[in-house]
Parts: sequence; structure tokens; C-alpha cells
Amino acid sequence: MTVKIYETQAVQDFLNSISGFDQEGGSERAKKIMHRFLSDLFKLIDDFDVTQEEYWTAVNLLNALGSQTQFGLLSPGLGFDHYLDMRQDAIDAEAKRTGNTPRTIEGPLYVAGAPEAEGFARLDDGSDLDAETMWLTGQVRDIDGTPIPGAKVEIWHCNSKGNYSFFDPTQSEYNMRRTIYADSEGRYTARSIIPSGYGVPEGAPTDVVLKALGRHGERPAHIHYFISAPDYQHLTTQINLAGDPYTFDDFAFATREELVIEGKHIESVAEAEKRGLEGPFTEVIFDIELAKTESADLQVRHKRARAKEDEQDAASQLASTAKV
Amino acid sequence: MTVKIYETQAVQDFLNSISGFDQEGGSERAKKIMHRFLSDLFKLIDDFDVTQEEYWTAVNLLNALGSQTQFGLLSPGLGFDHYLDMRQDAIDAEAKRTGNTPRTIEGPLYVAGAPEAEGFARLDDGSDLDAETMWLTGQVRDIDGTPIPGAKVEIWHCNSKGNYSFFDPTQSEYNMRRTIYADSEGRYTARSIIPSGYGVPEGAPTDVVLKALGRHGERPAHIHYFISAPDYQHLTTQINLAGDPYTFDDFAFATREELVIEGKHIESVAEAEKRGLEGPFTEVIFDIELAKTESADLQVRHKRARAKEDEQDAASQLASTAKV
Repeated sequence: MTVKIYETQAVQDFLNSISGFDQEGGSERAKKIMHRFLSDLFKLIDDFDVTQEEYWTAVNLLNALGSQTQFGLLSPGLGFDHYLDMRQDAIDAEAKRTGNTPRTIEGPLYVAGAPEAEGFARLDDGSDLDAETMWLTGQVRDIDGTPIPGAKVEIWHCNSKGNYSFFDPTQSEYNMRRTIYADSEGRYTARSIIPSGYGVPEGAPTDVVLKALGRHGERPAHIHYFISAPDYQHLTTQINLAGDPYTFDDFAFATREELVIEGKHIESVAEAEKRGLEGPFTEVIFDIELAKTESADLQVRHKRARAKEDEQDAASQLASTAKV
Repeated sequence: MTVKIYETQAVQDFLNSISGFDQEGGSERAKKIMHRFLSDLFKLIDDFDVTQEEYWTAVNLLNALGSQTQFGLLSPGLGFDHYLDMRQDAIDAEAKRTGNTPRTIEGPLYVAGAPEAEGFARLDDGSDLDAETMWLTGQVRDIDGTPIPGAKVEIWHCNSKGNYSFFDPTQSEYNMRRTIYADSEGRYTARSIIPSGYGVPEGAPTDVVLKALGRHGERPAHIHYFISAPDYQHLTTQINLAGDPYTFDDFAFATREELVIEGKHIESVAEAEKRGLEGPFTEVIFDIELAKTESADLQVRHKRARAKEDEQDAASQLASTAKV
């Protein structure tokens, strides 16, 4: 097939009409973005001679992705989350907000409303008996080294099978999910278990997309963080535990050199007792530097549909698309 | 925000990596199409300074669309179905397959396996008592006027409330869905009821998208057709009943001038009796001209996920395996 119709007046007029350029209501920004999006896609269909069968296979895949709520999983796999981070990094650099701990992607598995503690919390419920004990600690500081007492440190991670509480109904509520407020020295400490890496479920729609690209869907072992404090820029990040085969081959593109942490395996009974532990453990130290900002918008995490976080917000966000 | 990062080497390298250009497996075509698709979208995000909140609102909407299997509904609303038709029209014109009845979009509501009949079938089950009786008839011919006896005419349409059987659980199985093989003169005749126009459900994800564009989600009253015969190009089309307020303002862009049919209201008792009807009715005449083709691919409808079709295919494949 050599037929090209994209540049014809009929197609260009059609694109204007689809995008609502001839309609009074709606959002000007939504119309312009849709026009650009559809123009790009129509041109792609023309340039690649996309067939009806290819097109409807894609539509089918989109329905499958949505029916399993996998767009938030495919999104980092297609690099969007990291790309948005790259953009925010550039924006921060331009505004001279630098020297802080790097951000990385949030992922789709945060659940709001975790139990809160001061200084220390145990994250795991003790039921994962195969798991190695993890002693996770660090200090939250300004980029000049000044501790930030009371900084809010939210941590979430999976168990030794790669599963997250809430999304895994066999786990207790908020297992491996806690909010710890840093102590008077800006320190936070968590007792937990070493999480495992995990992969996109075999045969899931996200896996189908990745396989078509010759890619895998594996993530290295990692621990998620939200860190915030008044007058500082909210930080969404993750640490990767060094030594995982996928540390530098994360399907979600979340790894950043500065966020790879070498855990220290400690056998000493005295060291264990000092921490109230019964046996060997792995200590993981992650200090966090935050950048100052006066912008109230930057002091909080951006809005996004999150489990247990203002379900109403998510709904109204959806509804307000029309107003964007 | 004035930061632009799309053109940087880091982003360009990242796009190659996401698209699997550095991976051996997968499909070369899928990789190239994905690279183009992501490049366009990354550039769009940069050019429009798309915010995290806008991006995640979109992801949320994609999940909502899929969870309600609405990508096949949004697709015609965003013009893709009609655009693919425009491309096929251009391909046909180049191959000199012209003069036939125009195609238009299939829509997402076909169900395979409808009861079959020769020459005549009653489509409705008689339960829609408010509905006006429709006498739908026509001749299937070659573009030179030669009738095509035995042509397969598949018809489906909604009831007086705008609902389709199978998707509306209150209706009987295959209500208003039949396959009629044309008689020795190439004629098909169906007794049914006049369908109603209908709209995308208020507040549904598809409606949210259309409202953001200032658009409505209404369709005029219409009747779907698949027509096929050996040695002729398969035709997917629809007719619109003239006089509907949305006849020339279909959200799905399916209307084509040549497919708008004026129904004729007939009160004559004699005319009714001649057709075995009890009272007044509306006669709708739709003659169909098919284009000749030797291409086996063009003689059948393109593949697409359709209700009851895959199972049937699987079953007939199984049956044919048994005979081999």
C-alpha cells in the first residue's frame, strides 16, 4: 500500500472537527493537545500503513490494560514516569534547586493512610518467616547538612515474594507501609525485611507490550520513599539494593546511580541486641538531602489517583478533565 | 515552565532504549511503531509542558476507559474508524474498485452467530410494543446492475430505546440481529422496528473525553450491515434514517451522504396485508452495490475482537481439525 492521505484537506479538516475546534464548549487546552495527539497518530497510521487488524489489536490491548488497571504499570515501562522526572530535574536545575537527593518514579502501588510513628517503626508484621531482617535508617538533612527534625518519611516496599500489602490480599493491612517522622536529629529508623525484586505478570497486557519490544518486565529489589518537610521540596524516590541482577536493568527505568545502596550484612550478636533484634540482619543506610523551596505546590506530592487517598479527589480529578 | 528536553541526547537515547532497539527479540515493526509513537508523545509533553497532574489524569482515564471496555466506543468518537475508512477508500480508488456502495464504520456492537434465513427474516422479537414497524428491503447487485443471488446480508440495529441485544440483558438473544441470504433476484427483506438514535452514557469515560472537546456523544438512528459474496469485496456499512437531528452530526463520524435513507411511512391496509403486517409501517429501501475483487483478503471482513466470533472461529477450527 502506498496510499497517503494525511496531508489532504479532507483529513486536516476532519482533525479540526474531531478536536472540537468548531465547538464553543470544552477546554481550549484539551482541544489543542488532542489535535496534536490525533494528528501525530493519524500521520503515524499513514506513514506505517497500519492495517485495520493492527489497529484493532491495539484497541483490544488498551481495553485489556484498563480492565486490569495496568496503565500505571505500563506507563513506567514505556518510560513516561522517568521522562516526567527528567523534565522536573531540568526545571529544578533551571531554578537552581540542586544538590539534593535525586528523585525517581513513584510507581502505582502507594497506599495512603499508613500508620504513623516518631523516629522508629517496625514495617513488617513478622509473618514472612523466610525473609531476611532489614534495619533501614538514615538522616534527613538540608543540602548544607543541617538535619531536618520532624521530616515526614513515608516508606513502602514489597515482601520476599515481591508482593505489596493491599494489592496482595494475603497480607495484613499496611504491611511494610509506614510513615515515620524524623527525630530531633532528623533521623528515621525502620525495622523491616529485605524486599525481593519482581516482574510484570507473565502474559498480562503489559507483558504483551514489552515482549513485542523484545523487553523483559523485571524490577530489582527496591524501597519506595516520599519525604517532605515544611519549606522543602517534596521528594518522591526509591532506593535499589545493590547486587540485584536487574539493578541497572529495571524495566521501569527507576534506577539512578546515587540511589543504589549496598546493604551491610551483620552477624554480630552485640549489634543485633543493640537494635533489639534476635539474629543476623542487613543494615541499609539511606540519608536524604532535601532542597529548599518557597513554592507551596512543590512542597507536596503532585496529584494522582492513589489508593485510599481522597477517592473523591480521584473521581473529581477525572470529572475535571473537562475543565483542564 | 520553559524547559525543553526532548531534543537532548539523553532523551533520544532513552527513546531507543524504551523501544527495545538494543534488544534482540520482539518485532521490528512493533519497535519502530512504538519508537515513533513515544517520540511523538514525549515531544507533545515537552511542547505543551504537560504537568504530572495532567499526565496522571490521563492515565486514570485510560484505566477507566478499559475497565468499561470503552476504547471501541471512544475510537470512532476520535475519528479513527472513519480515518481507516478514508484510507481504505483511497486504496480502493487507486485499485479502481469504485462505483460500489460506500463503506462506513462497523462500531463495537456486532455479535457473530445470528440466526440465518433465506430471502426474508423478522429481526425483532415483537416485545418492543411502542416501536414503529419497519419493512427493510433491497437488492444486492454488481456495480453494473447484475443481481447477486445468495449474497450474505448481515443486519444489526438497536431497539426504540437505543439498546442492542447481547449488550442489553433485558432483550432476547439475537434480537434485531439476523443474517439473510439474498434470493434468486438478489433481494433481501427484513421485518423489524425503527431503531432510535442514542448517546454515549452521561459521565462515562468516553463522555468525559468528548465533553473536554466541547463535543456531544450522540448518534442518529442507523442500521448496521455486513454484505459479502464470493468474488466481491466485503462491505461494512450503515444506513442512517433521514430526519434524525444528528443525521449529519454523528459523534462517530459514520454518516455518508449516499447512506442517508428516507423511510416511507405507509398507512395503506392493502400494502400492509401484502407484506403480512397488521397496521401502518415504514418502508426503508436500501440497495447495495458490491465491487468485484479477486483478493481473498478483501472478500472477508478484517479481523477484530467481536462478541461470539472468536469462540465460533475456535469451534469451527476444532471441527475442521476433526475432519482432516
